[in-house]
Amino acid sequence: MKVGIVGIGHSKFGKRDDCTVQELAFESFKEALLDAQLTQKDINATVIGSSPEYHKQRSIPGVIAEYLGVNAQPTYLTEAACGSGSAAIRTAYSLIKSGLHDIVAVVGIQKMLELSTPEILALMGRVGDVQWESGFGITFPGYYALFARRHMHMYGTTEEQLAMVAVKAHKYGAMNPKAMFQKEITLEKALSARPVASPLKLFDCCANSDGSATVILAKEDLAKKISDTPVWIEGIASASAPISVIRREYVDRVPSAIVAAKEAYKMAGVGPDDVDVADVHDCFTIAEIMAYENLGFCDIGEGGKLIEEEQTYIGGKVAVNVDGGLKAKGHPVGATGVSMTTEIVKQLRGEAGKRQVDGAEVGLTHNVGGIGQYCFVQIFKR
Amino acid sequence: MKVGIVGIGHSKFGKRDDCTVQELAFESFKEALLDAQLTQKDINATVIGSSPEYHKQRSIPGVIAEYLGVNAQPTYLTEAACGSGSAAIRTAYSLIKSGLHDIVAVVGIQKMLELSTPEILALMGRVGDVQWESGFGITFPGYYALFARRHMHMYGTTEEQLAMVAVKAHKYGAMNPKAMFQKEITLEKALSARPVASPLKLFDCCANSDGSATVILAKEDLAKKISDTPVWIEGIASASAPISVIRREYVDRVPSAIVAAKEAYKMAGVGPDDVDVADVHDCFTIAEIMAYENLGFCDIGEGGKLIEEEQTYIGGKVAVNVDGGLKAKGHPVGATGVSMTTEIVKQLRGEAGKRQVDGAEVGLTHNVGGIGQYCFVQIFKR
Repeated sequence: MKVGIVGIGHSKFGKRDDCTVQELAFESFKEALLDAQLTQKDINATVIGSSPEYHKQRSIPGVIAEYLGVNAQPTYLTEAACGSGSAAIRTAYSLIKSGLHDIVAVVGIQKMLELSTPEILALMGRVGDVQWESGFGITFPGYYALFARRHMHMYGTTEEQLAMVAVKAHKYGAMNPKAMFQKEITLEKALSARPVASPLKLFDCCANSDGSATVILAKEDLAKKISDTPVWIEGIASASAPISVIRREYVDRVPSAIVAAKEAYKMAGVGPDDVDVADVHDCFTIAEIMAYENLGFCDIGEGGKLIEEEQTYIGGKVAVNVDGGLKAKGHPVGATGVSMTTEIVKQLRGEAGKRQVDGAEVGLTHNVGGIGQYCFVQIFKR
Repeated sequence: MKVGIVGIGHSKFGKRDDCTVQELAFESFKEALLDAQLTQKDINATVIGSSPEYHKQRSIPGVIAEYLGVNAQPTYLTEAACGSGSAAIRTAYSLIKSGLHDIVAVVGIQKMLELSTPEILALMGRVGDVQWESGFGITFPGYYALFARRHMHMYGTTEEQLAMVAVKAHKYGAMNPKAMFQKEITLEKALSARPVASPLKLFDCCANSDGSATVILAKEDLAKKISDTPVWIEGIASASAPISVIRREYVDRVPSAIVAAKEAYKMAGVGPDDVDVADVHDCFTIAEIMAYENLGFCDIGEGGKLIEEEQTYIGGKVAVNVDGGLKAKGHPVGATGVSMTTEIVKQLRGEAGKRQVDGAEVGLTHNVGGIGQYCFVQIFKR
């Protein structure tokens, strides 16, 4: 029995002080219901993907379920840092495959910008090991700067190549009406921006954001009834890695991503060359370059060259983050994995408009939690 | 295909400033591994049940997975307030039933007492609706005092009957070496204790606590190989209810518990009269009385009489919370649902020692999240 996606919804990402967390959830949930032509009564359970610490309201599934109108159906939250949304999809998938539910809505949501940037930075850092690492002051940009320096040292990756990832993200973000930043940038602008954690500069870093995204999953027979264009989850894998950077064999790659990708490809019966369109976790530009390599789109060390040759643009070897990515779309932590999935569904349905990858048949999401202590890789076919 | 429990472990509950959150997780995890005679390599995935906001370390599955030695296997966290542990068991069950994993460890954990009581009280309150209710000052004891007053008004339930629940809890807690409080109390002591939120007095309220509990789940054929005494999950249900008390039809019962119980009984093919031993969510004494009623151990309004007649003692109609319950054992939020399950497994294996319910064949856990916005009911057979 397969599990298909029959409805998708996406809120505007950005600073959303116009609404509460439950209203923000409803913004994408109602779109997904309309997309699937379902009502609340059809939803057997709801899984919320979110990192709880950002919200004044604790245990948000309670207020969200009430506001969405899905009581008395079950609901709870999954958390895996920035991978929380994909953890929710994994949970929903297994709730359906197990026979417990037929139709499950997954709402990825985060409302971070009630907090100030220093508060967010402090919270983010505490996703690293508090006892031995982040407790001594390293921040998220600091971790990724370390990864970038190592990658540059090992493979000759350049600051220009990092900046090229940002240029691509903003090019496509400008075509995405739901993106936080909808304007293009030049390579010069990216390279001359102020440093955040050298070698990472302002445009190498994604933005904290508010936002929600919803996907509705259904078991195979119902998915075919509900939708003329169901998108099937064909590979769904996850892995973990030591949170402590000091305990990792490599810091120029994300070990959990390599393990998860291998398993997802095996399950889906495809390889990296079969992927037409991918949404990968570009929390920093170096993260997208490592993703190319860890997913097998190129060899280890070749990621910089891949972006330089524009092989991850539409028309290249594999179109990556043509919704703008975390970089231009914004990164409301718990929403991100679900947002990625909505983009892949659009692409496989052929509904991505100006950003459409012609004839896309196989799509992939790659959603990293924290500094790679978790990674979720999911593969979709139409 | 059934899912069985093949290993259980339980840390000492109480103030645990002798260890970190990952060390506390290991305390129950190692017991469960030894109990099942498995090693870390046998565990295909780990699900952590916890309420994240209490910990300085964010996204605790990262540090826990590393410390337990279960990288690169998948891990993530589930949250449903005080029901987080049972949400984790539901997730693990479905991950196995879906075919994604064969053996999954569930670690319920909370380390609350790094915070002060006023800090915990403030965090707890924010599990109620922040916009319309808890934001105006109501606390958790306040919510349950409201439920108690209504129950007393509707059914003549008395403060003495509430106190009798506490006396029972402490009687059995005194027999549980893992309990936070291991001494008996008298009815007079409970009745003369200082008020917390009238009519609830000190001994009507469970205690904030640190602790962890682990259960290891396996698919049917493996469970039979691993264990001579697997305990089977026969009913597993969950429901939600409006978080806003004002939107509920009743405040003398927990609507999500009634829905979840009905579904769990149906799935397990048993009724309330078949249950030999139960662990129910007695965060306050009134909660245990409502649980009796919502689970069908007696009619609505008859819960006070049931405890007065000692029908929920060992030897009565159904033995309830003979491990001391949240009340005497302590309530480390995310650990509670898993702790309940370890007790039921012990009882069904006949390994509960002085607290053994003779010939127990059917056990039940009832784990409420928040003020009833979630409830998880699970039924077990040997």
